[in-house]
Amino acid sequence: MAERASSGPPRGRRRGSPDTRSAILAAARSSFAEHGFAGTTIRAVAASAGVDAALVHHYFGTKDELFLAALELPVDPRKLIAPAVAGPVEQAAERFLGVFLTAWDDPDIRPSLVAVARGIMDPAANRLLSEGVLPVVIEPIGVALGIDRPAERMPLVASQVIGLILMRYVLVVEPLASMPRDRVIATYAPTIQRYLTGDLP
Amino acid sequence: MAERASSGPPRGRRRGSPDTRSAILAAARSSFAEHGFAGTTIRAVAASAGVDAALVHHYFGTKDELFLAALELPVDPRKLIAPAVAGPVEQAAERFLGVFLTAWDDPDIRPSLVAVARGIMDPAANRLLSEGVLPVVIEPIGVALGIDRPAERMPLVASQVIGLILMRYVLVVEPLASMPRDRVIATYAPTIQRYLTGDLP
Repeated sequence: MAERASSGPPRGRRRGSPDTRSAILAAARSSFAEHGFAGTTIRAVAASAGVDAALVHHYFGTKDELFLAALELPVDPRKLIAPAVAGPVEQAAERFLGVFLTAWDDPDIRPSLVAVARGIMDPAANRLLSEGVLPVVIEPIGVALGIDRPAERMPLVASQVIGLILMRYVLVVEPLASMPRDRVIATYAPTIQRYLTGDLP
Repeated sequence: MAERASSGPPRGRRRGSPDTRSAILAAARSSFAEHGFAGTTIRAVAASAGVDAALVHHYFGTKDELFLAALELPVDPRKLIAPAVAGPVEQAAERFLGVFLTAWDDPDIRPSLVAVARGIMDPAANRLLSEGVLPVVIEPIGVALGIDRPAERMPLVASQVIGLILMRYVLVVEPLASMPRDRVIATYAPTIQRYLTGDLP
């Protein structure tokens, strides 16, 4: 329940208490799942958690960052991807697959990523991918790389990467599950590179 | 419960009754889900359904065919794929994507296919894909096409097709969900064709 402080804001809203942060995150997760990314506002999350919108901004920053916090990723995908974005765009696919596999092949990180992937692929959470993960995580990679038409090309990249994740890590299908990292990169880099910078219809 | 017939087989096993077929299918679905494709035998399915193994063979033929029946696909994937297999292997990817999109874009068939896809991607049914769908449905396409190393190449094809299915039909992510059929084919055919017949590491 809400804690009231005599010097606090009006309307019975909660101030920062030890569990305020987790109450905001829980409200954010419910809202993103129920209303999608586009249908979620900081204001509505704050109201649902019984706090001021300013407190949500204070804890989490923008809606993008609240979304990433609600996903509970074990790594910040934007930091993870940074080395892939830096460098010539002609080898971006190799670098991208490299940092990507480094995270997914890490036994400390993989279980959390598999849980997140299952959540994203859950039909009940459809809009998390289309409205949240694509614009917040995936399309900015294309923008940072300076490719043309990133909003068209990055979903193609996502369609191959998601299939690879599903086969190699979630469903653990051979020979992909045991394929050495370098071979995975050499197998998939031409596909990803064409989607990033190649001729498309 | 089992019906007994005085002239029937011993050990109280059921003979063909109106619901025997559905009892066998239910037992098969449980066994494939619990023990995987490789861990399921006709004999065990028959015992679980309370019938003779010969009756399972009579109704469903081989274990492959029992598996396809248990998947309850709205179309027989082997018949669907037949036109894709006939013809020069150099254009197999285009033909494959063509018949594939014809089925998935059909509003009468799509809902059942989406339901099957969700079942296959369900982590609880992991082994349905790796032990059942790959060897029974997907790898035979590569064998029929006469490509080399079909057991290595067809999972690559599956990794791209599954990602496309997930984005276009299950999660309905734009621009893939609304992309015209010919453009989907032109976009993905080079990827699939390389996995089928191209140079791989």
